[in-house]
Amino acid sequence: MSSTRDIDALIEMMAKLPGLGPRSARRAVLHLIRKRALLLTPLADLMQTVAATARECLNCGNVGTSDVCDICTSEKRANGELCVVEDVADLWAMERSGVFKGRYHVLGGTLSALDAIGPQELRIPRLIDRVASEGITEVILALNATIDGQTTAHYIADQLDGQVQLTSLAQGVPIGGELDYLDDGTITAAMRARKQI
Amino acid sequence: MSSTRDIDALIEMMAKLPGLGPRSARRAVLHLIRKRALLLTPLADLMQTVAATARECLNCGNVGTSDVCDICTSEKRANGELCVVEDVADLWAMERSGVFKGRYHVLGGTLSALDAIGPQELRIPRLIDRVASEGITEVILALNATIDGQTTAHYIADQLDGQVQLTSLAQGVPIGGELDYLDDGTITAAMRARKQI
Repeated sequence: MSSTRDIDALIEMMAKLPGLGPRSARRAVLHLIRKRALLLTPLADLMQTVAATARECLNCGNVGTSDVCDICTSEKRANGELCVVEDVADLWAMERSGVFKGRYHVLGGTLSALDAIGPQELRIPRLIDRVASEGITEVILALNATIDGQTTAHYIADQLDGQVQLTSLAQGVPIGGELDYLDDGTITAAMRARKQI
Repeated sequence: MSSTRDIDALIEMMAKLPGLGPRSARRAVLHLIRKRALLLTPLADLMQTVAATARECLNCGNVGTSDVCDICTSEKRANGELCVVEDVADLWAMERSGVFKGRYHVLGGTLSALDAIGPQELRIPRLIDRVASEGITEVILALNATIDGQTTAHYIADQLDGQVQLTSLAQGVPIGGELDYLDDGTITAAMRARKQI
């Protein structure tokens, strides 16, 4: 490589980001260097700010810039509904849809015997505390429709059984979905949960 | 979005990088925030360093950290061969192969009537100066095998005609290539340039 040490190091570090490989990291770094005044310097400044301020909410596990996140501090969101998600990315996806007005609880993963991830490694004890202390009336288990996600949902449902109303997201045909491209499991779920028009 | 302003701004800025979209930018930023001590802070520092030091070589257009790049200053690379490439990424690709021991000239693009890019917008006048002043004996036109790349190669060949030996990269079947997946043009070029075994 003819580029010097720092540039090589930057490419190597960018290549470690999810979704980027060595080739796309090189392209991104060249783009950044070409627009260094407009893009590279502001990006570096912003990263420094985020590195200094970003933290996980001590209550729900969401990412924010204070010890307790905006959603947990907002009184408007204390409507008794608690949505349990695996990951902050899932929380952001729910927020983009704008459909949910309650609070969240981010587990930080799923139970996995293979990876030795038990309830203590996730935020499950904290979830059980919150259900008791925050006046929660409904827990929505919005975990991914994978085996690990559903195993985790069953475990949580067992733990909270009888204390609170438990719901999960509906399964069926996604909006814009074509039957021909859907798997058998989804079609079966959609057929079983069919609705009167 | 429940994340705060700086995090949103960082996602937005990362999404502008080539190869990243909004979804992968969100994933990358979440990954960076989770590993902020190990990854985000060093990355921000490195970006700041590169923003302060990176510049284009005044001679050849390569990216480096000094006014004249390492290749242009190395006496070992003054072997009379000059390899003309479109872009710094192409120069890096040539350097990774390790096959070329001479110097480079980065045009910074291709001639394009549609985008109003003429010889003055590229480093073509500088190339003609260098051929005269640096004792160049062979100019290798390593431009992309696209219409714009080949038009540019023809233009440069016209300008340098008679002054220097002009060559271009061989065209043919790529190593590991399967005939069934190659286009007709490549097969035709490979057949015409066939070699005695």
